[in-house]
Amino acid sequence: MPLLEGSPIPPTIEWMGDHIRLIDQRRLPDELVLVDVRGVEQLCELIFDLAIRGAPALGAAGAMGVALAAVQGRDMAEAASLLKATRPTAVNLAWGVDRALAAADPVATAVQIAVDDVSVNQAIGAHGTAVVNEGARVLTHCNTGSLACVGWGTALGVIRSAHTAGRQMSVWVDETRPVLQGARLTTWELQQLGIPATLVVDSMAGSLMAAGEVDLAIVGADRIAANGDVANKIGTYSLAVLARYHDIPFYVAAPTSTIDPATPTGADIVVERRPDAEVVEVGGVRLAPQGMAAQNWAFDVTPAGLVTGYITEQGISTTAL
Amino acid sequence: MPLLEGSPIPPTIEWMGDHIRLIDQRRLPDELVLVDVRGVEQLCELIFDLAIRGAPALGAAGAMGVALAAVQGRDMAEAASLLKATRPTAVNLAWGVDRALAAADPVATAVQIAVDDVSVNQAIGAHGTAVVNEGARVLTHCNTGSLACVGWGTALGVIRSAHTAGRQMSVWVDETRPVLQGARLTTWELQQLGIPATLVVDSMAGSLMAAGEVDLAIVGADRIAANGDVANKIGTYSLAVLARYHDIPFYVAAPTSTIDPATPTGADIVVERRPDAEVVEVGGVRLAPQGMAAQNWAFDVTPAGLVTGYITEQGISTTAL
Repeated sequence: MPLLEGSPIPPTIEWMGDHIRLIDQRRLPDELVLVDVRGVEQLCELIFDLAIRGAPALGAAGAMGVALAAVQGRDMAEAASLLKATRPTAVNLAWGVDRALAAADPVATAVQIAVDDVSVNQAIGAHGTAVVNEGARVLTHCNTGSLACVGWGTALGVIRSAHTAGRQMSVWVDETRPVLQGARLTTWELQQLGIPATLVVDSMAGSLMAAGEVDLAIVGADRIAANGDVANKIGTYSLAVLARYHDIPFYVAAPTSTIDPATPTGADIVVERRPDAEVVEVGGVRLAPQGMAAQNWAFDVTPAGLVTGYITEQGISTTAL
Repeated sequence: MPLLEGSPIPPTIEWMGDHIRLIDQRRLPDELVLVDVRGVEQLCELIFDLAIRGAPALGAAGAMGVALAAVQGRDMAEAASLLKATRPTAVNLAWGVDRALAAADPVATAVQIAVDDVSVNQAIGAHGTAVVNEGARVLTHCNTGSLACVGWGTALGVIRSAHTAGRQMSVWVDETRPVLQGARLTTWELQQLGIPATLVVDSMAGSLMAAGEVDLAIVGADRIAANGDVANKIGTYSLAVLARYHDIPFYVAAPTSTIDPATPTGADIVVERRPDAEVVEVGGVRLAPQGMAAQNWAFDVTPAGLVTGYITEQGISTTAL
């Protein structure tokens, strides 16, 4: 049975027997384009150009790239190096590559990674549905949906599961500057799923909370330290502070694989700095004057004390470990 | 003596004896273009197209428009209606128009409005310098500088005065979505003035505070209620909450004319909703999918309890009245 049969959103990436099919996210939200990938170099280009992004999605992409080399009788170790070099800091990509490379059957392993990703997401969603009350107005940040994973999603997966379970609800979507994953991708997914949603600039979230328009916030996580501190897209920390100030529940939804026991606290997480260009330009249009300095911290760290609960495939917990 | 002689930033609008000269802010930050305005209709078009914006600047523009009609022997009442119709909700525009219209000498009144605006701003700046310590890292939001006024500025005027007084300092500039006045205008002004500045997305402000990178925040105000509640650009409220959470001083700089004794509290201020297009598009580039709903609250209201002090031309006070 194909992954996510009947879903209005196809899998982000899928093994098609002898090749890979993936959504070209560069074309969203304007059009849904599926690309058939028949060579490792082609896949590398697509990963490098961010046609596919999101940690869980890249894990599957790395494994399927090795599987592609395997079915074509290519040197798998060489394919693995090419794939890893496309996004050298993406740990999930390297993880997927290495798992397939070490496997007796790289194809079966790659397919299993994809299947597991969806089932873990759906388990997160099933548990998370408990915190989404009838009529809930949910605020979310960045894209944590099907497009960031193989299918379904983490924080947005909770929203999807609650909707599928029949909850009437609506979603406030932070646009998520600078890269605008909320405005471009989360909005598109919610449209496909028929879930009522409204886009806002990031700095409006506090006013929505003050106006009593937000019942809960759910975000994803890039990494969770052993003590529960959460590294996630820039802006998450501000939302957590604002949620606490307004006494609004603030949940983090992520697979347990995101929890890193080797990282004691958020202070041990190095926050990635990304190019100024993401701040001073939007869609090729320059906003700021030439020569203007910018800072672009890609992530921030939310202390565990601001997190109401962690929603994982194992359930909802007030601690990470 | 011309207004602001020797300033690296010319007056936003100036009376030239028989015509008006203004900065075309649509061309910033790419180039500084001064437009000579010799007709009321031409001025109306420039106001309508936002070549000039900012409440104090529009007050002067309205008065100078009536002055232009006066020196040209035109029907001043007709000119007044045309001018007011360009931005029907801009109370300062109507105020400037009406003051010039009621004056025995509209030209002298228009010139006086401009002169007074600069001197009030400079008095705000002189008082505000007391809160800017040597080495201060100041966070600001939106554009509250020379370009929003006739010259100098309010919150940015405090920064300018402190710099002029010899303070070593640096500025964090919130880009200020959706219209990006911070990214486009505040950055440009700070460059012209030689004040070190760094642009950030609005949602990064909280992380900067948590990292100990912000010593104080200074913002402007569109209206201040009698109890001290402050209506200002969307995002101001979130900054005020974040500043309080991190125990960082949060100042509001504005002329006393911004304080409205007839508005008892912030709850009596109606927040303007602006078109969705400002959120779903940037610089003509569409970000969100077709048909996506957005909310665009142009302003928010910050409760007086979150304001450390009000910096006006009369001094610094912990209350508005």
